[in-house]
Amino acid sequence: MLIQAMTVEECWAMLARNNIARLACARDNQPYIVPLRVDLDGQFLYGYTALGRKIEWMRTNPLVCLECEEVTTDRVWASLIVFGHYEELPHIPGNEDARRVADRLFQRHPMWWEPATVPLGTSARRAPIAFRIHVDGLTGRRTVQENSQHDRQDSARRDSQPVWLIRMWHRLRPTRTDA
Amino acid sequence: MLIQAMTVEECWAMLARNNIARLACARDNQPYIVPLRVDLDGQFLYGYTALGRKIEWMRTNPLVCLECEEVTTDRVWASLIVFGHYEELPHIPGNEDARRVADRLFQRHPMWWEPATVPLGTSARRAPIAFRIHVDGLTGRRTVQENSQHDRQDSARRDSQPVWLIRMWHRLRPTRTDA
Repeated sequence: MLIQAMTVEECWAMLARNNIARLACARDNQPYIVPLRVDLDGQFLYGYTALGRKIEWMRTNPLVCLECEEVTTDRVWASLIVFGHYEELPHIPGNEDARRVADRLFQRHPMWWEPATVPLGTSARRAPIAFRIHVDGLTGRRTVQENSQHDRQDSARRDSQPVWLIRMWHRLRPTRTDA
Repeated sequence: MLIQAMTVEECWAMLARNNIARLACARDNQPYIVPLRVDLDGQFLYGYTALGRKIEWMRTNPLVCLECEEVTTDRVWASLIVFGHYEELPHIPGNEDARRVADRLFQRHPMWWEPATVPLGTSARRAPIAFRIHVDGLTGRRTVQENSQHDRQDSARRDSQPVWLIRMWHRLRPTRTDA
């Protein structure tokens, strides 16, 4: 097994297809993580959540980091890290477009992983707060099976081979072990 | 669905049975998350990792936060948050006992989720760094199905009922839907 850096395109594609993330914020250099549901639109991750520690902290320090995972097995996984900053989307003039995007995305997911409005214990139903995270940068790593490296080298060689030979190679080759 | 706070005992039990966590550290109030493998022993989570941004940041600011999840479905999940501080375990006098614990735990897991020593891309095999996180506090939330709330109320009522009635109730009751 090898661990490889993902390309920027691979990172954006992984971010687009994942809705569950862990968000870290910090106050006085004390980090805090929460899992939450987010949805990508352009350069922004949109979400809804209830008022609580993370919102209070992000209001004082908008710098955040998010993490997504795609784990197939111990040996086949990808992990994505996003650096960004928090923007709250209250009902005020100027936020109409962003709130429309948030509402549209929200309606695609009637059941959120950490439902923003679900009562916590015996407390009352909580009012959701719309926010978005501007993606300032992202980086990812994924495992690469060593034999799939060989497959890729084979693939590069095949590019210069005639079609009949490639077809025969496909029929005769062993089953690939990588995804 | 309701979301409930977990008891301290439930939090420690969940921490003990989970080895994959996301760790957040911070520098200059910029948080950073990485997934990694940890193992609980007493009040400490032990781990190994390669030198990199997280180690450099935790050396300057030992305050960390970790998160674990147990997700069965969108409606059945638990999430645990751990506040702690980082201690590195170099080969120096005074660290023998802690390093022995780390080595013992490490040997139980020949395949780490984020293998500390696996080459990154084309770089050479990396030297692992042993560390531990002192658990300063922990808190957790989990979903509770509303009908299991009713079951608990029933259970409280049964405490004042005779044994024969409890036994009959157990034989006749429908299958429980909560874990």
